[in-house]
Amino acid sequence: MKYKIAFDFNGNDLGTLECLYASIQFLKENPDYLIYAVGNEEEIIAVLSQIKDNEVKKRLLIVNNLAVPSDKKNVRKSLHEKTSMSDCFDLLTNKEADAVLSAGDSGILLSMATLKAKRLDNVARPAFMPIVPTINQSKFFLLDAGANLETKAEYLQDWAIIANAFAKVLLKIDNPRVALINIGTEDYKGTQVIQEAQALLKENQNINYVGFQEPRDLLAGSCDVALIDGYGGNLMLKSTEGAIKNFAKLLKKNLLASFITKIGALLSKKAFKTTAEVLDYRSVGAAWVIGVNALVAKAHGASDRKAFYNALKQIKLALENDILNKIKNELGIDV
Amino acid sequence: MKYKIAFDFNGNDLGTLECLYASIQFLKENPDYLIYAVGNEEEIIAVLSQIKDNEVKKRLLIVNNLAVPSDKKNVRKSLHEKTSMSDCFDLLTNKEADAVLSAGDSGILLSMATLKAKRLDNVARPAFMPIVPTINQSKFFLLDAGANLETKAEYLQDWAIIANAFAKVLLKIDNPRVALINIGTEDYKGTQVIQEAQALLKENQNINYVGFQEPRDLLAGSCDVALIDGYGGNLMLKSTEGAIKNFAKLLKKNLLASFITKIGALLSKKAFKTTAEVLDYRSVGAAWVIGVNALVAKAHGASDRKAFYNALKQIKLALENDILNKIKNELGIDV
Repeated sequence: MKYKIAFDFNGNDLGTLECLYASIQFLKENPDYLIYAVGNEEEIIAVLSQIKDNEVKKRLLIVNNLAVPSDKKNVRKSLHEKTSMSDCFDLLTNKEADAVLSAGDSGILLSMATLKAKRLDNVARPAFMPIVPTINQSKFFLLDAGANLETKAEYLQDWAIIANAFAKVLLKIDNPRVALINIGTEDYKGTQVIQEAQALLKENQNINYVGFQEPRDLLAGSCDVALIDGYGGNLMLKSTEGAIKNFAKLLKKNLLASFITKIGALLSKKAFKTTAEVLDYRSVGAAWVIGVNALVAKAHGASDRKAFYNALKQIKLALENDILNKIKNELGIDV
Repeated sequence: MKYKIAFDFNGNDLGTLECLYASIQFLKENPDYLIYAVGNEEEIIAVLSQIKDNEVKKRLLIVNNLAVPSDKKNVRKSLHEKTSMSDCFDLLTNKEADAVLSAGDSGILLSMATLKAKRLDNVARPAFMPIVPTINQSKFFLLDAGANLETKAEYLQDWAIIANAFAKVLLKIDNPRVALINIGTEDYKGTQVIQEAQALLKENQNINYVGFQEPRDLLAGSCDVALIDGYGGNLMLKSTEGAIKNFAKLLKKNLLASFITKIGALLSKKAFKTTAEVLDYRSVGAAWVIGVNALVAKAHGASDRKAFYNALKQIKLALENDILNKIKNELGIDV
């Protein structure tokens, strides 16, 4: 096989089957790929036995490991346990896999990626970078979305360089607009760290730095790379998710409140569906662990088969565009 | 007059008229009130001359002052300038007004409130506290929403006590649910500060502390008081605002995309309108500067007449419920 993905089937909210269905669909459509399904062999086999497509079954290699971290709070301990996640990284470091996909604990995934795949030279701290859909059908990268509660100006600059490379390849944008997210757009606003980061980014000739932006306009596509500390990024992401979810919920309730609006809802159903789908984080699939010497994707804990499938598609894009070497190039690392 | 409000007409995006129309409407409905309109006398008089209701005009006292801070970045300098905002606080400290309403710069308003109205005893740092509407028609207080980029556990506890009192009076809830907003609900998650704050709130017998909450469920009404540092609170608020605005925008576009959905939109118009109105921050009006020995309300910079009117209504509720003395009571301050 040309490309091999190590997929951690454990540690997600909806269980083995969602991972499996996503894998099968992906493998059917992508004959060049092989997936290591690392998880509950018994559950996987029970479903696979009902599938007749032997060609696809051949490209799904099961690695039986039901173990998840015994104590999520204890990251150090988790790193030394033989879990499905650590198996995935072993496949990676043994060159048996080209990328890892997991919906397991973010903190442990990040630490394990750092420990096993190693940090990239010149990069101080890895980060989490989800792709967020906008109302213009465009997408932007938000980072850090939760790996580093606190940050330094240099980290933000490292992340800018990497996300810039990701945006060029995955979003197909020649000159991505890179913004620092702040509590105001005025130059004097924000913490010492963000002030320093702004100075660094203004100096950087390879980055199209567009200044401070507030979270308000991001979903309208105001930038391609939105930089922030992991604490703020995480709050933004979950606020956005909650706002959309609850707005849609209330609208649905109000549409069902009268006969006339019910008819209206029926006729305008397609518009709702399209809107919800466009802004659904599941349609884009996963966050990247960036700053490590490997392709590591983190799926949302609540991912369903659609989310996992889209995460696999993102990995495919990254692999086929040789993104890791492009990033090393941008960072001036010998490849 | 029983109640007097000093209203800063300057420093907002939409200008004098929105403040004026809101004041006139409010005064018409509330014969017990007097408003000091501190701003551009010429503009105010031009409109007032067209109004026939002399009784209302008598209760709108114009204080001519066009000045706004000459340099917003320089808070210290701004505090010593004779601006419309400082005039409002002079009316307050001279006991000519019972409350201040302004849409001017947050940082300056906070500093001026602290300097002129003074901090409440036992309270380390004032904060901004907007009321946020939920999809259940309930509301919750979010604080700090931007006054203190960084916080200490003790500040969060102070704010919890004050917001708790506000919630009892303004939201009419006997035992408000107080939550700390965090990047995860697990007990071990978050910064040192939030861990310490959790310990303090768990010990406090007068607070119904309900634990860590993520931003995701707030709009579903998961708590009555949401506590967070000003940096995170500000990002949350603007993310929520942006998500709703952009979701609605996309939905509108999709509804206009076909003949059928256009008809559907027409029939379900009422449901959209209700939904947008319920979640519109303008329907609730203003944030409070809390922790100072006065009632100080901060309207959104982009407030229109509806927003200002609702801010005035909030102030009315606070005044008529004697909230400041209730807070002092809760804090064990002699009144």
